[in-house]
Amino acid sequence: MLTEFDIIAKYFQQGGLAADPALHRGVMLGIGDDCALLSVPRGKQIALSMDVLVEGVHFPAGAPADLVAQRALAVNLSDLAAMGAEPFCFMLGLTLPQAEEAWLDAFGRGLRASALKYKCPLVGGNLARGPLQIAIQVQGLVPAGTALLRSKARPGHDVYVSGEPGRAGLALEYIQGRCTGLTPEQEAELMSAYYQPEPRLQLGQALRGIAGAAQDVSDGLLLDLERMAVQSKVRISVDIASIPLAGVLTRLRTSTDVFRLALTAGDDYELIFTAAPSKKRAVLAAAKKAGIRVSCIGKVSKGEGVEVIDLSGRPLAFSRAGYEHFA
Amino acid sequence: MLTEFDIIAKYFQQGGLAADPALHRGVMLGIGDDCALLSVPRGKQIALSMDVLVEGVHFPAGAPADLVAQRALAVNLSDLAAMGAEPFCFMLGLTLPQAEEAWLDAFGRGLRASALKYKCPLVGGNLARGPLQIAIQVQGLVPAGTALLRSKARPGHDVYVSGEPGRAGLALEYIQGRCTGLTPEQEAELMSAYYQPEPRLQLGQALRGIAGAAQDVSDGLLLDLERMAVQSKVRISVDIASIPLAGVLTRLRTSTDVFRLALTAGDDYELIFTAAPSKKRAVLAAAKKAGIRVSCIGKVSKGEGVEVIDLSGRPLAFSRAGYEHFA
Repeated sequence: MLTEFDIIAKYFQQGGLAADPALHRGVMLGIGDDCALLSVPRGKQIALSMDVLVEGVHFPAGAPADLVAQRALAVNLSDLAAMGAEPFCFMLGLTLPQAEEAWLDAFGRGLRASALKYKCPLVGGNLARGPLQIAIQVQGLVPAGTALLRSKARPGHDVYVSGEPGRAGLALEYIQGRCTGLTPEQEAELMSAYYQPEPRLQLGQALRGIAGAAQDVSDGLLLDLERMAVQSKVRISVDIASIPLAGVLTRLRTSTDVFRLALTAGDDYELIFTAAPSKKRAVLAAAKKAGIRVSCIGKVSKGEGVEVIDLSGRPLAFSRAGYEHFA
Repeated sequence: MLTEFDIIAKYFQQGGLAADPALHRGVMLGIGDDCALLSVPRGKQIALSMDVLVEGVHFPAGAPADLVAQRALAVNLSDLAAMGAEPFCFMLGLTLPQAEEAWLDAFGRGLRASALKYKCPLVGGNLARGPLQIAIQVQGLVPAGTALLRSKARPGHDVYVSGEPGRAGLALEYIQGRCTGLTPEQEAELMSAYYQPEPRLQLGQALRGIAGAAQDVSDGLLLDLERMAVQSKVRISVDIASIPLAGVLTRLRTSTDVFRLALTAGDDYELIFTAAPSKKRAVLAAAKKAGIRVSCIGKVSKGEGVEVIDLSGRPLAFSRAGYEHFA
């Protein structure tokens, strides 16, 4: 039988996943000791985030291990993106019922692909027997004082979203058998949106000094805008006609469903952010640089909460409900 | 019903647990945004560790929540101790089947007591529904280049252990009903050894510049010495007559059992470390400063593996087996 140390050596200390002193210069010590050791470059702050993914809650039971690994790292990197930070390194706390080699091999392969893509090596963590859960904790670097915060939305700011939220929500309906009749291309698009969300790292970094508040959308556009409104002590109005709609949604769903998915489904990991109207050109230039569409979807004003405005300018009674773990 | 945000605000953002700008000066941003932000003081490196505790594997099902919280933080702080680092801050990934307020209240209380004691605030993490697991990830600070590593044991070094390992192993037997007839004092001593192990932070810090290799004992003295021997590419010989034995062990168990517990039981979180014979006085002074007994239990030589030497100087056929998750 494989021991914990065998598994780590075989699947997690490989080139491309573990830190390479030549490539990852701030990582002074990686996997294998009681702690990892990092040197933070002068003038930088370290940004930290941690997310635990539970089988059957955050991803379907029996989901492909390589995709689960990629999703687990991506949702953490998305938190770095939302701060305008660049990836530095990550830790993994993996609990699994048994040491099944095919699963571990696929998981390690998926994780390695993402670690390479985002230049974010694995520096430690632990492995134990238990129900399948993946705890990932990431470190990022950001020039001191430039991190994007949720609390910086100001009355008069425009509100933006990147990409086209809602595809991951439809993907989950597909995985759960509630969406049928997809073409192979549509299936591939949805699976990728759900399992391989693209953390908007370049956009986040490009928005430093331009955006007011920023945050990623993990639990639903309206629910996450509500959180931003609370932290910034402002009101956010969303213009329903300006919500960007993915073609795959409009082709597969009625308009009510399309708006429900775009406004309340989670898991897309797009960025929401605000900026003063005077920064509009800079916002669009940042988006172009990052190679991602951004849409102005609303406005910040004095007050509190989030409202959705319909085509005639009236507030819609749209539930803001997104994903809540304990509600 | 409480939402995730309600729970965090009520149980985890309280004074004493969340970072206080006046007390925790490197913590620029704590709980509530996409990431926490840290400024690392010049000349310091950051030490990172992460451990996941699973109900029924790392602590008994139904264990008191305040003690589980304290144990979860302590085992992570022990990794900082083994590097000679001081606590900086930690993150928590908590998954639990339901939001039971009495449990959360006790858990938060235990965590707060330890956060205060070790000056280590909670700066973020997440909370989700799932089987009960506690993922903790800690940050520590250590002067650049002075961290204690597992790989620095050298032939000729003496081998030391702090405290009296084995009590946590007996505690587990007591919890599992395999040890009876304890006095209230003995019960209290064992419960404290298991649930509230004292991370040897002061000792670790005092050993910087004195010790060769250092490591904490999580899975058993011999198994963890074996890991040190592997990383340092040396042989470690343990003199059985020099193993420090806790009174509570010798009063409750036969000598075979006492040595089995002292040599192979995990969960004590004592430090093992090596030092050149010329450093003996400095080692004892460091231990005195830290207020903890240390015992010289063996010697490092060329070769590999770990051997236990009996009273007549012959190697004992003692199994090194400690706790292995997947063996």
